[in-house]
Amino acid sequence: MAIKLWDLAAAEDDRRFSPNCWRIKMALRHKGLEVEEIPWRFTEKDAIAASGQGAVPVIEDQGQTLYDSWTIANYLDEAYPDRPLLFAGEEAKTLCFFFKHWVERSLHVPFFRVIVLDLERQLHPKDKAYFRSSREKRLGKTLEDFAGDPAQALAQLRGALDPLRPVLAESPYLAGRTPGFADYLLLAEFQWARALSAVRLLEKGDPISAWRERVMDLFGGYARNAVGYPA
Amino acid sequence: MAIKLWDLAAAEDDRRFSPNCWRIKMALRHKGLEVEEIPWRFTEKDAIAASGQGAVPVIEDQGQTLYDSWTIANYLDEAYPDRPLLFAGEEAKTLCFFFKHWVERSLHVPFFRVIVLDLERQLHPKDKAYFRSSREKRLGKTLEDFAGDPAQALAQLRGALDPLRPVLAESPYLAGRTPGFADYLLLAEFQWARALSAVRLLEKGDPISAWRERVMDLFGGYARNAVGYPA
Repeated sequence: MAIKLWDLAAAEDDRRFSPNCWRIKMALRHKGLEVEEIPWRFTEKDAIAASGQGAVPVIEDQGQTLYDSWTIANYLDEAYPDRPLLFAGEEAKTLCFFFKHWVERSLHVPFFRVIVLDLERQLHPKDKAYFRSSREKRLGKTLEDFAGDPAQALAQLRGALDPLRPVLAESPYLAGRTPGFADYLLLAEFQWARALSAVRLLEKGDPISAWRERVMDLFGGYARNAVGYPA
Repeated sequence: MAIKLWDLAAAEDDRRFSPNCWRIKMALRHKGLEVEEIPWRFTEKDAIAASGQGAVPVIEDQGQTLYDSWTIANYLDEAYPDRPLLFAGEEAKTLCFFFKHWVERSLHVPFFRVIVLDLERQLHPKDKAYFRSSREKRLGKTLEDFAGDPAQALAQLRGALDPLRPVLAESPYLAGRTPGFADYLLLAEFQWARALSAVRLLEKGDPISAWRERVMDLFGGYARNAVGYPA
């Protein structure tokens, strides 16, 4: 039976933008597991009440309901150890856990700053007020003040990506010769942006750009074929 | 025959402060290899001329001369594959390469800012002028202006360490249940500071502090017993 995944959607059902959901959508393809993706909106807390909390990704598999992308990725390797692994072992998993925290603390806000106004525009009407008030409260300023100057926001993001460049100049994937969960953690941020915003995030010669193309091509171009703007 | 390592020294022969050398000194103990450590100063370029460049660490092993800490760590796992590995495999090594670049781009300068004036004071007299002029040229300001307000510099460093805390709150080492090269990359920065400066870098309850104590205890307290200030 297919694994059910509740996946955040924008105004259109098939514009899927949640980076935490993208982590898991790529992970499920990596494992070669069948998935039923259910479009979900910020305000539909009832639909995922079985998870005991209010955020996606949520999956239902073999009678269990799980949330949190890191928990789900670990579950998938434990429940399906004979399928391709998301983590090559304990050392790789621990370093990937660091990578996850680096993405969340050093990349996520610079990405958010670049796309925030496009994001708000693309939301389902019933989600817009929730999004604006919850985010402005967290940021302590209006979305417009947070976005600031677009050129400056883009330069900040490109600078934040710096430690990735020497790695991706030498290695096809963050996990080495073949992709792993670290690659999906990073791609998820780019898929989030691409679903919502036409801003060109990377310059042509950037090694991160070549890596991004490679990861979008995986699994029959699954990430590339998602509804969004050109990368 | 023991591996020769040229290791940066301060005014005293046994005050060894180079973080790039500390990476390799820990790595050599991890491998259980015999080492002859030769004190070296910034201005003694002739002594390491065989490496074809002017910086330490430099090692000589089995008739080969090697430099650059990443190259040397890789060499040690290749030349001594039957001894404990510094990298658990290709995925762990690639993620560790990212970690190295993160340390260099996000941690190294905040550490340097906290200790720079103590560092200059501890140098061998023949190295002081070289150090000041080369670093002030690179920084574009005097060492004193770079150091700025000590409390602010310390707060900046503690903030830069943020992505490590959730990892070290859950895992004894960055490499998992046992230490690996990632741990030595991070410890090297702390050993650099401790060799030169009495500043207390971490607060007691900080999970990074407990990790640091653990790594200093490895190999019979090798890092803890080095000449320096209390951690």
